Amino acid sequence: MGPLDELRFRLAEGSDLRLAAGVLGWDQRVTMPPRGTDSRAEQLATLGRIAHERFVDPEVGRLLDACEPLVEGLPYESDDHSLVRVTRRDWEKARRVPTGLRTEMTREAARGHHAWVEARRTNDFASFLPYLRTNLELKRRYVECFEWSDSPYTPLLDDFEPGMLTSEVREVFAVLRPALTEIVASAPEIDASFLHGDFPPERQRAFAERLIASLGFDASSWRLDPTAHPFCTSFSNRDVRLTTRYQPDDLESVWSSLHEAGHGLYAHGIADTLLRSPLAGAPSLGVNESQSRTWENLVGRSRPFWEHWYVPLQETFPSLDGVELDTFVSAINRAEPSLIRVDADETTYSLHIILRFELEQELLEGTVALDDLPEVWNARMKEFLGVDVPDDAHGVLQDVHWSSGSLGYFPTYALGNVISLQFWQVVCDALPDLDAQLAEGDPLPLSHWLRDNLYSLGRKLTPKETIERLTGSPELDPGPYLAYLRDKNAALTT
Amino acid sequence: MGPLDELRFRLAEGSDLRLAAGVLGWDQRVTMPPRGTDSRAEQLATLGRIAHERFVDPEVGRLLDACEPLVEGLPYESDDHSLVRVTRRDWEKARRVPTGLRTEMTREAARGHHAWVEARRTNDFASFLPYLRTNLELKRRYVECFEWSDSPYTPLLDDFEPGMLTSEVREVFAVLRPALTEIVASAPEIDASFLHGDFPPERQRAFAERLIASLGFDASSWRLDPTAHPFCTSFSNRDVRLTTRYQPDDLESVWSSLHEAGHGLYAHGIADTLLRSPLAGAPSLGVNESQSRTWENLVGRSRPFWEHWYVPLQETFPSLDGVELDTFVSAINRAEPSLIRVDADETTYSLHIILRFELEQELLEGTVALDDLPEVWNARMKEFLGVDVPDDAHGVLQDVHWSSGSLGYFPTYALGNVISLQFWQVVCDALPDLDAQLAEGDPLPLSHWLRDNLYSLGRKLTPKETIERLTGSPELDPGPYLAYLRDKNAALTT
Repeated sequence: MGPLDELRFRLAEGSDLRLAAGVLGWDQRVTMPPRGTDSRAEQLATLGRIAHERFVDPEVGRLLDACEPLVEGLPYESDDHSLVRVTRRDWEKARRVPTGLRTEMTREAARGHHAWVEARRTNDFASFLPYLRTNLELKRRYVECFEWSDSPYTPLLDDFEPGMLTSEVREVFAVLRPALTEIVASAPEIDASFLHGDFPPERQRAFAERLIASLGFDASSWRLDPTAHPFCTSFSNRDVRLTTRYQPDDLESVWSSLHEAGHGLYAHGIADTLLRSPLAGAPSLGVNESQSRTWENLVGRSRPFWEHWYVPLQETFPSLDGVELDTFVSAINRAEPSLIRVDADETTYSLHIILRFELEQELLEGTVALDDLPEVWNARMKEFLGVDVPDDAHGVLQDVHWSSGSLGYFPTYALGNVISLQFWQVVCDALPDLDAQLAEGDPLPLSHWLRDNLYSLGRKLTPKETIERLTGSPELDPGPYLAYLRDKNAALTT
Repeated sequence: MGPLDELRFRLAEGSDLRLAAGVLGWDQRVTMPPRGTDSRAEQLATLGRIAHERFVDPEVGRLLDACEPLVEGLPYESDDHSLVRVTRRDWEKARRVPTGLRTEMTREAARGHHAWVEARRTNDFASFLPYLRTNLELKRRYVECFEWSDSPYTPLLDDFEPGMLTSEVREVFAVLRPALTEIVASAPEIDASFLHGDFPPERQRAFAERLIASLGFDASSWRLDPTAHPFCTSFSNRDVRLTTRYQPDDLESVWSSLHEAGHGLYAHGIADTLLRSPLAGAPSLGVNESQSRTWENLVGRSRPFWEHWYVPLQETFPSLDGVELDTFVSAINRAEPSLIRVDADETTYSLHIILRFELEQELLEGTVALDDLPEVWNARMKEFLGVDVPDDAHGVLQDVHWSSGSLGYFPTYALGNVISLQFWQVVCDALPDLDAQLAEGDPLPLSHWLRDNLYSLGRKLTPKETIERLTGSPELDPGPYLAYLRDKNAALTT
């Protein structure tokens, strides 16, 4: 074996271990008997430890040294150049964190998560505070393992948005925040009462399966299961697992399913040649999220899409019989400030994110004390969204992320919104008949365009390289997203 | 860490890897989208390779050398003495097989399995023959890695029944064969037509869940899923996965579920202190099978059991309303020669096994040529069971085992029958009120006795040590099994 084959073999093994851990994680959330938890945690810890040990092995560095001259002349986007380049970046980053710190982070993340579940249930922030403090302290130590130019927050952000600077995100959010506040303030009041009613879960399930099957998945390559918290994962581009949640009194499963299907189409579209390698993924959470948002919102809340699907929906749920298509489309696009991020509409959602992004930086830098967090949270919610937080369970304790010390993750959701519209402009230029195609129930031209121009590239490019490849410029640009929201709100039928 | 802790840590990691592979295997058979097959095979191969490499590491031998003096004075059945003793045996055995041969066996097993699926579908033994030849040749090379005293078949048997000799099994089967033939010949003809009818799968499922929940599992520690081929696996003693098959026109799922629940109770009963170690299992397939047979047959076809459960069964399936309890019990206990092993009744089943056991030895020794196998099979089926084999799909191609070169596995099924009755005698002495308890729907005294006296020991003892521990003698004894069958057939109501 030459060094390139040897590198590929080692990375394929690492990929198998991570995918195996993925299967264990899916099983834990979807099918595992609850009392299997402790053993599952051990199994996952072992897989993670072995994969990490094998990856940070100095031998990988020697192989990279030997491979770099071999791929030098190849095109930047070739599989081999990308493999060596991206692996070098991953390897250098992984080696900076001492094993002891990594182990401690894993253990405290699990402890923090347990404490959070209980604290949220009992609305008891004080009981969660020591765990949050420990996890935050570990994150500070983690940040110290890296060099950063603009903000200590950048190494955290970089885990999810490789190469993105905190200052760049700040700039985007500085434009978004006042604009979103203004859009929300002027949003019309919409009657959406018909979206609450009697929607039998079994019918929701059948409808969601039918929707997803139409989006461009190959048959026998995906499945949809019910879970408490919807998510998507995959163990190859032909083994895509979507989950959703069926509430008997609303239709949220429709958009939750489309959202996860967007992630799923990304995984499904990754080129076969990238399987079993570190390139079999998306460039970042933000770019990945741009596609879940695309399918959930840009497609799944659009009038053309429902021109095709509204009659099947009415046939499935007769209580919608008297509701006009335009009324329905307005209701599913309305903006309305609320307390809970995961329930937020498309317009207010990014405000929930900006609030968290700012707080995370302040916590990291120590300018907001942990003890004051609930108070600050509640004041900001009033300031950003005009809502009063009744208790911490519906406030600062609502999200799982901080419980395991996951800082830097939240902004990716809002970046997903921004990027989705930057890409959507390109898509609309490339597919002038898109609206007509969606209205005919044919999303395949869209699905295939995105696969060929984005999903198939896997993780070869950084987020900014990806944005540049599609739009011609590497910059994040909140303009299209804001224009879309303004247009949409203006078009709502009250 | 002392050497014992270090050994435990390494073995725990190995156990985690094997259990992770188990989760991937369960998922593959129960939930995986079909097109995930190729990637799953890679993931499983990687987990198996890494687990094997880490286990056969000479460092494990050095740790065993260091641990053996430390456990010398401990009781034979203590966790630590057992761990070192059993690991030594496993390690010596694992190291005898060169990695190259092991890899080849894994690859050809997979190829053979694929070929068999197609050959069985198209009833084409010739297309399967080259794969069978390759796998048999590899088994011969595998056997050469070991020393054996009585038969080259013993190393194969030893993979499933550690320490058991081919000659010992031959002796038992030499008693069984004529006796079973005689019992079958004199078995009364029983009308069991009411066992075929309209049995809605959803009701079968609810009934199976209800049955299983009564047997002694802790809540939230098991689940039951439908599959094409019923099986049981577990990823800790609190994460037990049972599967069964619901045919809409019969009630076989009842006994298939009880069978798998028997395996499941074994896994569930393993002592917590043995988790994440090579001792977290059963002594052998035969001993494990003795318990699936116990719950399926000795409990699940007994009159006392149905004294409690027959009314609930009739309430679930009203077509049984006019059928008397005795008529029902006779029907589920009838003996009737048939073509297919997995559909065979309790009495004829072992004859299917003895046929395979003899053929396996003859194939291995070359006294039956592979080309003649279908012919020999059909002649033996006539001789053993008096049935005419219509085609190879219902003959020599019916079982999956040989497709992946699994020789030595079949006899464990019949040993399970034999051992189950040896243990049952002890159980009946220990629990004089057992029949009354079962008739009251209370199998917990039985379940707990088996857990405390057998399941909790895990894999500490060999099969023969286990038989000795329970019965006082290490010998396999077909007497109780034959007496049971004779008594049962004599009691059938025609």
